[in-house]
Amino acid sequence: MGVVSLASACTSSRVASFVVLGLVLNLAVVCNGGITSPFVRKAEKTVDMPYESDAFQVPHGYNAPQQVHITQGDHKGKAMIVSWVTVDEKGSSKVLFWSEGQKKRMAEGKAKTYTYHDYTSGYIHHCTIRNLEYNTKYYYVVGIGHTERLFWFVTPPEVGPDVPYTFGLMGDLGQTFDSNSTLTHYEENPLKDKQFIERSAAYQPWIWTSGNHEIDYAPEIGEYKPFKPYAHRYNVPHKASGSPAPFFYSIKRASAYIIVLSSYTAYGKYTPQYQWLEQELPKVNRSETPWLIVLLHSPWYNSYNYHYMEGESMRVMFESWFVQHKVDVVFAGHVHAYERSERVSNIAYNIENGKCSPVVKDQSAPVYITIGDGGNIEGLATNMTKPQPAYSSFREASFGHATFDIKNRTHAYYGWHRNQDGYAATADSMWFFNRYYHSHGDSTSDQHY
Amino acid sequence: MGVVSLASACTSSRVASFVVLGLVLNLAVVCNGGITSPFVRKAEKTVDMPYESDAFQVPHGYNAPQQVHITQGDHKGKAMIVSWVTVDEKGSSKVLFWSEGQKKRMAEGKAKTYTYHDYTSGYIHHCTIRNLEYNTKYYYVVGIGHTERLFWFVTPPEVGPDVPYTFGLMGDLGQTFDSNSTLTHYEENPLKDKQFIERSAAYQPWIWTSGNHEIDYAPEIGEYKPFKPYAHRYNVPHKASGSPAPFFYSIKRASAYIIVLSSYTAYGKYTPQYQWLEQELPKVNRSETPWLIVLLHSPWYNSYNYHYMEGESMRVMFESWFVQHKVDVVFAGHVHAYERSERVSNIAYNIENGKCSPVVKDQSAPVYITIGDGGNIEGLATNMTKPQPAYSSFREASFGHATFDIKNRTHAYYGWHRNQDGYAATADSMWFFNRYYHSHGDSTSDQHY
Repeated sequence: MGVVSLASACTSSRVASFVVLGLVLNLAVVCNGGITSPFVRKAEKTVDMPYESDAFQVPHGYNAPQQVHITQGDHKGKAMIVSWVTVDEKGSSKVLFWSEGQKKRMAEGKAKTYTYHDYTSGYIHHCTIRNLEYNTKYYYVVGIGHTERLFWFVTPPEVGPDVPYTFGLMGDLGQTFDSNSTLTHYEENPLKDKQFIERSAAYQPWIWTSGNHEIDYAPEIGEYKPFKPYAHRYNVPHKASGSPAPFFYSIKRASAYIIVLSSYTAYGKYTPQYQWLEQELPKVNRSETPWLIVLLHSPWYNSYNYHYMEGESMRVMFESWFVQHKVDVVFAGHVHAYERSERVSNIAYNIENGKCSPVVKDQSAPVYITIGDGGNIEGLATNMTKPQPAYSSFREASFGHATFDIKNRTHAYYGWHRNQDGYAATADSMWFFNRYYHSHGDSTSDQHY
Repeated sequence: MGVVSLASACTSSRVASFVVLGLVLNLAVVCNGGITSPFVRKAEKTVDMPYESDAFQVPHGYNAPQQVHITQGDHKGKAMIVSWVTVDEKGSSKVLFWSEGQKKRMAEGKAKTYTYHDYTSGYIHHCTIRNLEYNTKYYYVVGIGHTERLFWFVTPPEVGPDVPYTFGLMGDLGQTFDSNSTLTHYEENPLKDKQFIERSAAYQPWIWTSGNHEIDYAPEIGEYKPFKPYAHRYNVPHKASGSPAPFFYSIKRASAYIIVLSSYTAYGKYTPQYQWLEQELPKVNRSETPWLIVLLHSPWYNSYNYHYMEGESMRVMFESWFVQHKVDVVFAGHVHAYERSERVSNIAYNIENGKCSPVVKDQSAPVYITIGDGGNIEGLATNMTKPQPAYSSFREASFGHATFDIKNRTHAYYGWHRNQDGYAATADSMWFFNRYYHSHGDSTSDQHY
């Protein structure tokens, strides 16, 4: 399965070259049905993700499309944004696509380059293909002539309250806190390793969340505009949800409503992100999408000393809304370790009342999960606040990835899979009870491996 | 005195038309020497600010420059940015300037227009004049031919630790929370009332701080880019302090180091504003500029119910730095009333320790002053949290303006002047003791009028 391949790859020596992607929190689709835990780290035939030994090679041929990735292209799942890069010349921005037995259609996108210090990007193409059928396998071709490349994806099922769906979760595939942005961009060059991500992201619509390294603010080399490369490289359907910027937006997927926020874009009162989220949350129709999931980069509940309390400022701004609107789960990255919180809230404080202790087992509150892979394991292992605070249900400084497996409107099975020990056993798991339909205490695993 | 004229005008019926400027927190120079309190609300001959009955009229003549305003044009006070608008055609972007007995010099600026929904601005000119002498009166002319207009200003004294200097303070001259941005821009049109601000701002270098209305985010009319009009209209010397954006920057003025922050620009960790401030604070050399003053819009310590805790998210991010670097005073606007805090801090909290009560009389902490004029007095008067919290030293829901009168490296006299009762008596005052040179308990007024 794609996500497994990806997760295993993040322990390889190639990790360091995926800086930009690596600091993104990714919510990738694993498949449309359930996955049985314990997780087996092996490509399954039923998914038949191509995996070749030369998967990391830049494709052969003059101006061949590379770094192909897709993401959902509208609000409800009937469009897809296909993105890729050409380096020799601009070439075609067209995508040819079809489903089995149907006639081929063509969509036309656009290509741009950007400069960053002394680096000039290749031609970055984005093409949205629309009017797709739900739950259908589509083939698509980018490039022309001898450098055509064929990929495929399966569209999500139609949005509905009991539609089962499994999400795969990966965060922070790499860590380069000592690297500067120049290095980042050097690494974004079309080196052969760059293709690594394509083998999943060209087939599965990832949902991107920008991390701190995507800011790419580097005044020392004259780069002042935040998110310049990220905004060029990762198109998202933000306009479909009324968002003014690609850093925060929402999509529906099966029985889930997913809100992506930006820890590094203004969120003070009156700002666009604040105004957008204030209007967005009441729009979520839990009768249509019972599961309300939020993605952001810097965690609000983190008991590691590493990045401790960095999410506090955003928590202060938005947490009461999450409780009010009964968000089911919040996924974050940033901390290069794993942690799952209790259902916790801390919204009673008013400067004077002294009520600043987190309420643990607030059944209206989300579960907060930090799923930040990569980083130095040895450094992390001893880098936790002690004793473990009450709001922290489980934590472990390991590489890992997770799956969130929605069964119906009331139940979802969540599992975190430790990677670095050579096999993907379920190291932490939990039955999520939906906050709207079944807001009782969830059932968590009583046994950790 | 200019600042008095301005302050008195804010009780006039013209207030409603100064929306954009009105929500800016202004730190205007009153004069270079001390001002004796109690404040007399009358133009003093020694300052000889022109005040004509037609001060609100658009200047006569084809393409005459209007809305003239100046601000410091470099980091240390030897340059000035002159800004103005022409409406009939682009015209000249040149400024002719000279000091008494010296030859005239010419500087060339640039002009731009911007569009906002269905509004197109006039030609907005910005011209920086450089290599000025300290403490010198300069005359300057904008416009050409029959529409030349003559103004003057006095440059600040050379930066030094004991240089006396008086700042005038005005915040939030108007309130239009029910207005939308279209209205704002309609009001930015060159109507005759617009000239109102010119009579001060063309002669005194104001220091602007952007407020929430300057965001001008209006997705309903297709305006997504925050601060679009503000960034076009109000040039500041942000590059001189290494800032990437006009929303946060610093300048030196006499014995003061002034840091302007933006409540509505990203301030999360790793963001440009965060990085800039992190590097900026250690640069402040208190031996050169003993007084460290911060300006921001949304107050951190505010005991009115109005906008209560809106500044909390930014406080969480930066307050410990303010205490560490012994900021003397923080001026904010936003709340349309007046409040002065005790020296207060609240930086011990760490999620679990329960230490979230403000420490009152923390002698390393700044005094927080909210000086937001305008708004509905009746609405505000009963709109305070009760009882008055310990961190609030004095509060009054009145129009007002203030002066911060630096005497030397150790002492500054601060006075707040109530306006709406028809005369400008000092309603609140305090002797500030410098936090770097004399960090004892300050002396506050024990009598309020």
